[in-house]
Order: sequence, then C-alpha cells, then structure tokens
Amino acid sequence: MNTVPTKSDIDQAHERIKPYIHHTPVLSSSSINNLTGSSIFFKCENFQKIGAFKARGAMNAVLSLSKEDLANGVATHSSGNHAQALARAAKLMGVKSYIVMPRTSPEIKKNGVRAFGGEIFECEPTLSARESTLADVIRKTGATEIHPFNNYDVIAGQATVAKELFEEVRSLDFILAPVGGGGLLSGTALASKYFSPGTKVIAGEPAGSDDAYRSMQTGKIEEAQSDSVADGLLTTLGDKTFPIIKENVQEIITVTDSQIITAMRLIWERLKVIIEPSCAVPFAAVLKEKNMFIGKKVGIILSGGNVDIDRAMKLFAMQ
Amino acid sequence: MNTVPTKSDIDQAHERIKPYIHHTPVLSSSSINNLTGSSIFFKCENFQKIGAFKARGAMNAVLSLSKEDLANGVATHSSGNHAQALARAAKLMGVKSYIVMPRTSPEIKKNGVRAFGGEIFECEPTLSARESTLADVIRKTGATEIHPFNNYDVIAGQATVAKELFEEVRSLDFILAPVGGGGLLSGTALASKYFSPGTKVIAGEPAGSDDAYRSMQTGKIEEAQSDSVADGLLTTLGDKTFPIIKENVQEIITVTDSQIITAMRLIWERLKVIIEPSCAVPFAAVLKEKNMFIGKKVGIILSGGNVDIDRAMKLFAMQ
Repeated sequence: MNTVPTKSDIDQAHERIKPYIHHTPVLSSSSINNLTGSSIFFKCENFQKIGAFKARGAMNAVLSLSKEDLANGVATHSSGNHAQALARAAKLMGVKSYIVMPRTSPEIKKNGVRAFGGEIFECEPTLSARESTLADVIRKTGATEIHPFNNYDVIAGQATVAKELFEEVRSLDFILAPVGGGGLLSGTALASKYFSPGTKVIAGEPAGSDDAYRSMQTGKIEEAQSDSVADGLLTTLGDKTFPIIKENVQEIITVTDSQIITAMRLIWERLKVIIEPSCAVPFAAVLKEKNMFIGKKVGIILSGGNVDIDRAMKLFAMQ
Repeated sequence: MNTVPTKSDIDQAHERIKPYIHHTPVLSSSSINNLTGSSIFFKCENFQKIGAFKARGAMNAVLSLSKEDLANGVATHSSGNHAQALARAAKLMGVKSYIVMPRTSPEIKKNGVRAFGGEIFECEPTLSARESTLADVIRKTGATEIHPFNNYDVIAGQATVAKELFEEVRSLDFILAPVGGGGLLSGTALASKYFSPGTKVIAGEPAGSDDAYRSMQTGKIEEAQSDSVADGLLTTLGDKTFPIIKENVQEIITVTDSQIITAMRLIWERLKVIIEPSCAVPFAAVLKEKNMFIGKKVGIILSGGNVDIDRAMKLFAMQ
C-alpha cells in the first residue's frame, strides 16, 4: 500500500489477518476505576500471538505482498517484538525470514525468532549498523523489507486493535496508546477517525525519550533519545507515521520511569495481567493527568507482555 | 436449594448472576501447548469480580434467598475470597454482611471485606473458634449463613464457570479444577455431566493437603492437613460436595509445592496472567501427568489471582 490506509483498507486488513491472530479480550477493574474516577477498558494485546500487537501489522504486511515479492522471503531489523512477529508471519506463509538484530539483544529474543525459523544476522547495536547490515542481507537474498512501523500495511494491521475495541465498547471518550515509532499510534488514530470519530486519541510517551512530544511542538520529526525503562518506545517517528499522528492525535502525555513502574505494578496487582514497561505508559499518563479523565469512558491499549519476571521484580524493588 | 442442583438450576443460576459477574475470557498459548503437547484452554476466573470464581457462588446464594432470609443480612466465616465475595453480594443487594475472620488474616483481606461494607468479627485461627464465633454472630443478628462451599446454591453458582467454558470451547476431552472444600470441583463436575458429558473431570490437589485424594480412596470424607503453599485449598470436603465429587470426578492428581510454583511461574511468563498459588494446581497436575493429556483438548479453570506480588516473588526465588 502506497497511501495512507482508508477505512476499507483497515476493514480488509482485519479480515485478512483474523485467521492468524487472537481476538484479544477487553478487561476492566472496579478497583482501578475507583482509583482513577474514570471507566477504563483495557484492550489486552499482551495476550496476542507472540505477546504483542506487532503480530497484527507484520501479518498484514506479509499477507499483502504479491507472490513475487514474497518468493524470496522477508527481512527487517528489530531488537524486539517485530522480529518475532515477522518471523512468525513468514513461517505461516512458508517463506524465509531474515532478521537483523543487534548482537546485544537478549538471547531469549533471539531464540524467539529462531523458534519461528527466522535467520538472524547480528550487527553492532547502532542504527547505522542495523541499516547497512539489512541492506546487505536484502542484496544477497532478494528478500522484501518489512519495516516495523513506517509501512502502511503494518499501520493498517495495527489499526485493527482499536477497531476491535471500538466494536466491543461504544462511545469511548478517549483512546490511549503508547508511542515509539508510531505504528500503533497512527493505526489507532486512523481507526478512531473512521470507526469512532467522537473519540479523542491520546498517546503516552516516556519523558526520557519524548521525541514524539517534541515533534508535535515543532511540527517536524525530532530524534528519539534512549533513556527510559520503556525499552520498546525509544524509536524516532517515521515519515509515514508522523503526518497521521500530527493530524489525528490530540495530545501526547509524557511520564517518568517512576510513573511507568508504578502504573505497571498497579496493572499487575489490580488487573492481574503481566505487562512490559512500555505497555504501562498510557495508563501512567491517565494517572498523571487524572482530572482530564474523571467521569470519562477511556480505552487503553495494552501493547505487550514480553517482560522477564526477574527484571520486573527488580524494577518494582527500585520503587 | 435443598437438593443437588439440576441442569435447570444451573441454567437459572447463570441467568440470575449474569448482571453481577464478568463473563471471563478463555486464553490459550502456543508456547504452553508446545510444552505440554496438548491443547489447553484456560478459563480466567482470576479476572472475575473480587479476583476469583467465588463471586459467582456467593452472588447466586444471596440472590436465591427469600426476602425474609435476606432481611437481616448474611454471614459466613472465611479467611479468603469467599469473605469478599459475600460482602460484595450483600452490598449489591443492599443488606448487611457479617464476616468471621481469623485475627491472623492479612490486613489486605480484611480491608477487601470492609471496602464492600462487610462487618468483621475476629476470632482465633481455629475451625472451632470460627464456627462458635459465627454461631454467636448469627444468634445476635439473625443473619443467614452462606457457607463457602457446602451449599447447593453456591455449588450451582460455581458450576457456571465450566458452563461458560463448555459454551465457548466444544468437545473438551478433559476439564480440570483445583479442589479444597469442593465447591468449584462439584460445580464443575455437575456442569460437565449436564452440558458436556463426554468431558472427563479431573482435580488437582496439593500433596501437602491431599484429603480429597484420600477421601476418594476410602470412600468417606477425610480431614484436610494444612501444609501447602496453595493456601486456598487447605479445606476438608463437605457432605454436600463430596458425594457429587465421588460420583462424577474421574481422578484427583496431587502435586508438590515445588510443582505448584513451577506451574504458577509458567502461567505468569507464558500466559501473561497473574494467578495465585492455589490456582496453579490443575496446570501443575497436567505437567506432572503429561502423557495423560498429550494430543487432548483440555480445559483448565484458573480459579483466582489474589496474590501479593512480593510474596509471589519470594516463592519464585525459592525455586
């Protein structure tokens, strides 16, 4: 897809990926609602295949390729959930996947990719090393690149999270998603525009990597820093995601690591679900700007649950 | 209700409690299925109101009382989830609840009861002290006792967990529940008999309190011990629950504390849900008797998620 996804594109993406993804549940907690004074509906993509919403975008992108583009497999660079999501999508289609990963990636993430038959190419942990290694791999294999977020088919896939939430819970006043590269947020913004135009779209972003917040201020893409416990959100926006976000997202709320960890623990304790630090960011935003949400119906996308239990415990112990 | 619940009793219980409970989701995990070689469907009552299936039985019992029996409120003795469940049901009906709790109960559990307006009577942590204190309370208040499990209305309420699972997942080969006093297990057994007669019912029980296992061997109710991390399952069966279990449960599998904690951690890590130790017992049973379940469709009731995160961490660290 070479243009911003339309309503029909998102409908089609949803039909296309349905056989390959979980329709994830929406949970709520009286205890959390009492705490915030709002009525919150959590869309639990931490229960999605590979433990994160990324399964949707990668699946839609791979299913949307022509036979020719698919023939030599797919490739990406990713240190996180998109790597597993793409390897899984490729395996389901019976083609090869080539994943460029920083050599510093945890062994557990590399094993996740290998479990889906993905071939890993290690590189230095810098963006330029990742990009040049990927270019090499593509030259040698003829694989098609599937970018983690700056890809309209990926964005249309991620939009199906909010679409499902809007179908299940009507008349949300707000919907919140985290923002890193902006794939989930731009998809959420489009889904809201098409399927629930009365709903305001808000993003949560780590204060230690507040490039999306700054980009909204300056009107151009600002570079991400990388100082946050929310390690899935340390990415700069793309030229496909930013324009959609700029036009359709009302506000970006930044939160500190301490606020993120507090929110994460509350969700573990009250909602009884395991989420990773990046996933706690939108709820941390609601807790920070409580007054904005009092008496409102609020949808929050829980993006993923891939966190090592021991690491989470260390974070909680630091608070 | 003075007789064993019929199919129609369970149908009516379900209709009666629906407005007051969550229809909880069923989750599955490819990673867990790969590990066990079976196809497991987890019915997540840890997401139920008050964090456990007990919300169902207490609600059905209270809703089934006559106006007269309800007028002076309801009473029980409980150190656990039934206390909160009954206080909540009473509050929803606008009547008082009187809860006898051992003075050693954690403050968090007492606060849970108080949050629903329950009046707490503390006693020594022995069964005889609990029973005599409850008798006193009932004499003084005229409240109606709602037993945590030895009550047919409670059993009919708990049966709705398995009923919902059977409605969502057809042709299960097995369904597993934990067993303490036997309220959930006897309800599950009846639901299976009426709604999915081809499904075999299996219970998981802590080896350190294997009274249900021994009761099945001897044919009479054996006393519970109290040596297990699964603190919700240290209860002796009742004269209403045992006959149903004896007739309809195929097997009771006992598991050690170490097996329980391993199973609990796997569910946290792979299924991404927080469960309490007692809740991990049936999955521990599947891991222990793996061959029995290979290639089978298996339903597991996750009974509750009320565990202190710090305590869970200590358990994991002990392994």
